[in-house]
Amino acid sequence: MAGSSMKVLQVKTSGHNEFIDITGMIAAMVEESGPEDGACLVYVPHTTAGVTINENADPSVRRDILMMLGKMVPENAGYTHAEGNSPGHVKSSLVGCSVYVPVKAGRLALGTWQGIFFCEFDGPRTRQVWVQMLRSK
Amino acid sequence: MAGSSMKVLQVKTSGHNEFIDITGMIAAMVEESGPEDGACLVYVPHTTAGVTINENADPSVRRDILMMLGKMVPENAGYTHAEGNSPGHVKSSLVGCSVYVPVKAGRLALGTWQGIFFCEFDGPRTRQVWVQMLRSK
Amino acid sequence: MAGSSMKVLQVKTSGHNEFIDITGMIAAMVEESGPEDGACLVYVPHTTAGVTINENADPSVRRDILMMLGKMVPENAGYTHAEGNSPGHVKSSLVGCSVYVPVKAGRLALGTWQGIFFCEFDGPRTRQVWVQMLRSK
Repeated sequence: MAGSSMKVLQVKTSGHNEFIDITGMIAAMVEESGPEDGACLVYVPHTTAGVTINENADPSVRRDILMMLGKMVPENAGYTHAEGNSPGHVKSSLVGCSVYVPVKAGRLALGTWQGIFFCEFDGPRTRQVWVQMLRSK
Repeated sequence: MAGSSMKVLQVKTSGHNEFIDITGMIAAMVEESGPEDGACLVYVPHTTAGVTINENADPSVRRDILMMLGKMVPENAGYTHAEGNSPGHVKSSLVGCSVYVPVKAGRLALGTWQGIFFCEFDGPRTRQVWVQMLRSK
Repeated sequence: MAGSSMKVLQVKTSGHNEFIDITGMIAAMVEESGPEDGACLVYVPHTTAGVTINENADPSVRRDILMMLGKMVPENAGYTHAEGNSPGHVKSSLVGCSVYVPVKAGRLALGTWQGIFFCEFDGPRTRQVWVQMLRSK
């Protein structure tokens, strides 16, 4: 991928449903890419995973989000997809597979309590996260 | 719209709730726009529809997602909006009305199993999808 | 923030759960930024709030969306996070903390019935919205 502006991250998950804080890895990539304004696209190329921004101070927050996603999308609900991972697909479309974070003077501009979480919904697996920098006007 | 970088797609839906695979149409637009890196904004200008990225190999996946959205947002739940399409509005805000897909060397960069789906939540109708190309840094 | 392309909006919310129409404020910012094509990132730097695009004609639509979010994510559901605002965190990840709106010739390109809503899920509070302009290809 010489000449491409897209960076690839690897994430190893250990649970079936799990949030992994990837804020530090994304921040480092943004800082390497130079001192400009713009935005950073964090993109998950999987269909039973996602990415979300939420509180990264108290780990109970991500536990509560996973619990509620599990209640909204139970493991057994008359799914027709034979692979048995339909709940993961549904959660992926609810949470979304990308987030955009503004970049200010070459640094990730997150709110005080915000972190970026890779969302595993059919783990454990080795996953990728793609990161693309966009230029501001 | 001479001189505008925004492209407009038409999508005809045939069900009340339906996912339509628009990956091929978006990929063709991206390839026409030149060999650069960046991202592609796929934007749905409607309030009872959406767009999502999920598996496009087995059609049972999209059926299961629609089924679960129907359970989470039932047709009758004491809605106050008089037009009767409140479930469509709620689903639109859950799934979202835009997705961003990275573009690498002028080609849509999707994961192996990913496709882009127009989500009809109040059809059948004739709908639009707007596509905007953004430049990478 | 001299030299930065990021603009900051303040939003005062008055309810615990509330949608506030910020379309006019965003449209004004976009028009100030010049007559180009691109996209506008509307980013909420909070973890118990979000932003969504939906109908801004009939206020009953946003009431119905809030009602359904309240049914999907009840106030009491065995949350472990001690601050008592877990429902707000969950809703934030469901709705998302950013939207991207295409910009055509320097104007916000929304669908006929679309408006941009700041979503308060743990108010009342004084909140921020960050707005970043991105260039099209």
